[in-house]
Amino acid sequence: MLLLWRDGGLTENAEQSFDLTDRGLMLGDGVFDTALVVNGRIHRSSYHQSRLLAALRALSIPVAPERIAQAYDTLAEAAASRKISRASLRLTITRGPGPRGLGWPATPQPSFIATLAPLAGTVAFTPLTLQVSIIRRNETSPASRIKALSALDAVMAHHEAIMAGCDEALQLDTTGNVACAATGNLFLIVNGRIVTPATTQAILPGTIRDLLLGGVSRHGHAIAESIVPWADVEKAEAVFMTNSLRLLAPVSRIGDRVFASATHEIILSLQDFLRGDIEQECGAPVTTSGCGL
Amino acid sequence: MLLLWRDGGLTENAEQSFDLTDRGLMLGDGVFDTALVVNGRIHRSSYHQSRLLAALRALSIPVAPERIAQAYDTLAEAAASRKISRASLRLTITRGPGPRGLGWPATPQPSFIATLAPLAGTVAFTPLTLQVSIIRRNETSPASRIKALSALDAVMAHHEAIMAGCDEALQLDTTGNVACAATGNLFLIVNGRIVTPATTQAILPGTIRDLLLGGVSRHGHAIAESIVPWADVEKAEAVFMTNSLRLLAPVSRIGDRVFASATHEIILSLQDFLRGDIEQECGAPVTTSGCGL
Repeated sequence: MLLLWRDGGLTENAEQSFDLTDRGLMLGDGVFDTALVVNGRIHRSSYHQSRLLAALRALSIPVAPERIAQAYDTLAEAAASRKISRASLRLTITRGPGPRGLGWPATPQPSFIATLAPLAGTVAFTPLTLQVSIIRRNETSPASRIKALSALDAVMAHHEAIMAGCDEALQLDTTGNVACAATGNLFLIVNGRIVTPATTQAILPGTIRDLLLGGVSRHGHAIAESIVPWADVEKAEAVFMTNSLRLLAPVSRIGDRVFASATHEIILSLQDFLRGDIEQECGAPVTTSGCGL
Repeated sequence: MLLLWRDGGLTENAEQSFDLTDRGLMLGDGVFDTALVVNGRIHRSSYHQSRLLAALRALSIPVAPERIAQAYDTLAEAAASRKISRASLRLTITRGPGPRGLGWPATPQPSFIATLAPLAGTVAFTPLTLQVSIIRRNETSPASRIKALSALDAVMAHHEAIMAGCDEALQLDTTGNVACAATGNLFLIVNGRIVTPATTQAILPGTIRDLLLGGVSRHGHAIAESIVPWADVEKAEAVFMTNSLRLLAPVSRIGDRVFASATHEIILSLQDFLRGDIEQECGAPVTTSGCGL
């Protein structure tokens, strides 16, 4: 079941009247955000909303913050009233319909599409294997630092990983430094020290990444933000990926390199920290079994 | 007026029933192609169709060639019956609807959207100014060699150029070599010799580019395909951009560098060649005034 929201109305029917000249569809001209809903509450709601507004500003797509809050509130309430224990909330905002060509419409009318999908319990905290993609992240592109609708590179990198028998792609930037996974931020543990690519690199400022960096006083593990050369992967004792839905996934393998990440004490400790944070913010634990219904 | 075609039906109403989980809209997961229609005939129709099929293969989107031919035929006939003398035909094909996430649907049902828009006569052959974009073309991305729906980089580069008082963006690749304009191929004339980036570079194999390269015996001007360093721009005596609708646009300025391209005899000669080719294939000249209605 998928629940869809557009400009006030909720429906389970994905087929809707839509202007097919919309630049989201024609040119990937828009952004999205994906958040975890537990117990009818959005984890890190204000960070998600701030990040989405920053992405819209980066593309000069004019949207009032209240419209975003309204979409989030409506779908969170829908999850609560339907007793969906865990769900993925996706909000998509495009520059709206426009004439032929790349040029922006004079008075853009951004389109909003929000969806709520129940989430399997197996998504959170489950270990992953990564394949290094031949597709690099383009650090000169604004799309490398936002969740852009123009996501074809991530789609193709992910598929390449699946074909190689892995779960997800690891992307370097065009200079060969480590950027991120196709759907999450990467952290390495090297000589007991946690390091992650800085936001000056071709990465999305992830919600869980931000929570871990800001929560040092609560979880007790210092995290360095820096340029991460490939050599750090070769030296790493453990690796993990974070995103809003998987939360903190230990990386058990990158290509042929095997890591005992799932049993690493720092990783277990950070997973406990996240469980506690979610339970505190959402009023219920994120369970790791069953489905979200 | 915009004429829209979907799975057999023609309409002037851009608002249509559409599955909002379509991956074209959600992830920019699809391709498009834009062709010139003159006198109800598509210029370089078979090249356009071959290129679109190659792009679909690059993304493993399964589409029967007959469906593409049918879309082209239907809109070409519509242009003829409505006496639209010049039009832009855009065919958009996505991987179709899918569940949440990057993973491909098991049995994709690609979506087809084709549009026909009358074209102003001022589009063809008109000189352009270019601004060098800070956004590089990513030569490791499959999207750099096809007309991907994930076009946000081109959208942003184009807007950057408009804000700088230019008509269009010139993009280098991430190594600093010349790639192309946001919407067309680039050619430099250096010491009387024409050079253009090879298809091994981060460029689309453009329809007019292909016509010029294959037409040497008819127009008499050799064209070298190679890696084009920025230094070649500094040495160039003239520059031009090609695409299906602008055909061959002399570049009068790149940033602060001024070029007397519009009066360069090679450029005038190649424009004449293109006028002749279109008249021969479409049975009518491409006029450069008025609008396409």
